[in-house]
Amino acid sequence: MKLIDFRVRPPLKGFLDMIMYTDAPRRDRFTRQLGLAPAPSASEYSMPLLLEEMDACGVVHGVITARHSGFFGSVSNDDVREICAAHPGKFSGLAAIDPTNRKRAIAEIDRALAAGFPGVTIEPGAYPVPIYADDRTLYPVYAHLEDRNVPVVLLTGGNAGPDLSYSNPVQVDRVAADFPNLRIVVAHGNWPWVSEIIHVAFRRANVYVSPDMYLHGMPGMDDYLRAANGFLADRFIFASAYPLVPLRAYAEWFVTLPLKPEVMQKCAYDNAASLLGFRP
Amino acid sequence: MKLIDFRVRPPLKGFLDMIMYTDAPRRDRFTRQLGLAPAPSASEYSMPLLLEEMDACGVVHGVITARHSGFFGSVSNDDVREICAAHPGKFSGLAAIDPTNRKRAIAEIDRALAAGFPGVTIEPGAYPVPIYADDRTLYPVYAHLEDRNVPVVLLTGGNAGPDLSYSNPVQVDRVAADFPNLRIVVAHGNWPWVSEIIHVAFRRANVYVSPDMYLHGMPGMDDYLRAANGFLADRFIFASAYPLVPLRAYAEWFVTLPLKPEVMQKCAYDNAASLLGFRP
Amino acid sequence: MKLIDFRVRPPLKGFLDMIMYTDAPRRDRFTRQLGLAPAPSASEYSMPLLLEEMDACGVVHGVITARHSGFFGSVSNDDVREICAAHPGKFSGLAAIDPTNRKRAIAEIDRALAAGFPGVTIEPGAYPVPIYADDRTLYPVYAHLEDRNVPVVLLTGGNAGPDLSYSNPVQVDRVAADFPNLRIVVAHGNWPWVSEIIHVAFRRANVYVSPDMYLHGMPGMDDYLRAANGFLADRFIFASAYPLVPLRAYAEWFVTLPLKPEVMQKCAYDNAASLLGFRP
Repeated sequence: MKLIDFRVRPPLKGFLDMIMYTDAPRRDRFTRQLGLAPAPSASEYSMPLLLEEMDACGVVHGVITARHSGFFGSVSNDDVREICAAHPGKFSGLAAIDPTNRKRAIAEIDRALAAGFPGVTIEPGAYPVPIYADDRTLYPVYAHLEDRNVPVVLLTGGNAGPDLSYSNPVQVDRVAADFPNLRIVVAHGNWPWVSEIIHVAFRRANVYVSPDMYLHGMPGMDDYLRAANGFLADRFIFASAYPLVPLRAYAEWFVTLPLKPEVMQKCAYDNAASLLGFRP
Repeated sequence: MKLIDFRVRPPLKGFLDMIMYTDAPRRDRFTRQLGLAPAPSASEYSMPLLLEEMDACGVVHGVITARHSGFFGSVSNDDVREICAAHPGKFSGLAAIDPTNRKRAIAEIDRALAAGFPGVTIEPGAYPVPIYADDRTLYPVYAHLEDRNVPVVLLTGGNAGPDLSYSNPVQVDRVAADFPNLRIVVAHGNWPWVSEIIHVAFRRANVYVSPDMYLHGMPGMDDYLRAANGFLADRFIFASAYPLVPLRAYAEWFVTLPLKPEVMQKCAYDNAASLLGFRP
Repeated sequence: MKLIDFRVRPPLKGFLDMIMYTDAPRRDRFTRQLGLAPAPSASEYSMPLLLEEMDACGVVHGVITARHSGFFGSVSNDDVREICAAHPGKFSGLAAIDPTNRKRAIAEIDRALAAGFPGVTIEPGAYPVPIYADDRTLYPVYAHLEDRNVPVVLLTGGNAGPDLSYSNPVQVDRVAADFPNLRIVVAHGNWPWVSEIIHVAFRRANVYVSPDMYLHGMPGMDDYLRAANGFLADRFIFASAYPLVPLRAYAEWFVTLPLKPEVMQKCAYDNAASLLGFRP
């Protein structure tokens, strides 16, 4: 089975300065809490090993997210672009922005789009000064993306901000309602608010759900899958959030989940390919 | 099995001007998202067909809700009263109000009660200017209803307002606490906040839960049923929310649910009959 | 199997003036809503009977919480200390505080610690003037406890305050983040916000979860247990919340739950023993 992993942070360039690589014990505790073992490629900071792991489990493409953050560390769009360029066809990049100046943010988006980025990532609660996803400073950015039909990945689940309020799906609901043609992928699936994000996706046809690692035996897992097997079949997206979990073991587990075969195909590859603008 | 459907909007009079009938594709998308097929009676705007569908599945009585809304469209209490009068014994009506003027709202309630309405419907988030269920402007109305022992149906689940915050059970909790003798039925069961509304109903003996269509394979379904089989047996209410789902298929599905036989009898008929003041 | 019950209010001294004993019908309705029968010892206000019930089910130790409350009634730390002293080795006490004056609260804590209390209980929403767990007036108290390595039990689940907002885990999340070395046990497990408190415990290593009676067939039960069998094994705590449920029947039911044997041992005894400072 061919998969696209919609959230990958490879052991290269700026990523190596981020807390997920600089504080390996912290990351590995997190991985083990999810009942998984750390990836050899992550432990050894080895890109060749990661490429092997991807090959071994059928992940033919990965989506690399840039990041503008305080606590988590930052990775520039240039770094992401160079990683993608160095591995042709293997990776796509999502461009990060600094939300504090709308003109600069929009210029950065335009520069990224011109450089071939298929989408943008916005991580409201992870910015140096955390904000909510429906913060008014983000509205010009959302409008810009909607007008250009550029999808956005929102980090609004898990440890999305200083506290649990940053993953509350109400903010996503408002953004999705105010920009009905903006395709929004919620990374970490707004976990732990599972019923609530499923409601939002039920109501808003422009919301895509990617629980990534928080699917792994966590509360709500069955509800995510039930939705994927039903109304959410075209908007459920596989991702690992590597290196927080081992990409290979996670992908091998994912393909065993009780999704209908045609739904599995969509969630593992087609839905992501469509968002990335791959030609069918 | 005899059933009372606690939420029905027949294809007659003002209902035909509401979005649920004027925008059939929108409604049918909604129905299909729930894994159901549109009702023939809805597609054909046919009251005779609806009556046939009711007969075919044992729905002997339907509760028709008037509505005062912006986006969804409005149906007057007079329309509802005339529909009930034209089908003796077949329907009961719930009167809607305009909440912006408390004296007019209370006068309208008194008029409706005199005309035989057994209850009132309040849809805070659906009003032309959305409010929350615990908005202070509603408190004189709640007091009036509590004093007269008139039940109220609150629309506080699903697409209850502009965003997910309008279905948060905390507002129902406050109203139920402040008016402990007011019987409150939460339509759409405050879905998706299933655990939370079950807590509210556990704590407040005056809260009745009617998830209607959002029971159908949605997250929380098993929790609703577990509560119905337990402490909520006398306060769980069957409803379809027709025409958003097909009344017949939904009722036929409902009676197959794993409720204890005596609980099924209560949820399908007795609890609703009691709220409507039917003589046993 | 030996158990420590982390939440017991015996029929003695000030407890007898609390609503849980003065209004037996109210308490018994609550018990029955949970699908359980009232404890004989509670109905008969009999301490000898309670001790028999504890013996019969292997509860070798109970944690008695003092209380400073309006609605629920209060029990002084002196009362709790005297009950513990009268039953050597059988009970530990958690000291309550009045949060309205930080100096007096801290003096009371110091007095309790000197008297042998192993921990403190804070019940923000149950205080005569309800507050939230992250209220700033509590922050000097939390700091004092963190500095002295004294665990705190927060009442932040179930009927924790005037309404559902008082059990929202977001407030616990903030306190746990701001005092990362303060061990926090959430009594009533922040029920009904099960997924959310599991997220908080997943993220904050200093949060312990004790759903006590709200585990009994309520929504989220399976998620609590799944977490206990996984990352939460060292931080899941058995408690009954007696007399709201029968300690014996509840303990006998608890030990049949599908927890791995080594996890059951931790949840039934070891985790509590560690918090209480028992020598292994």
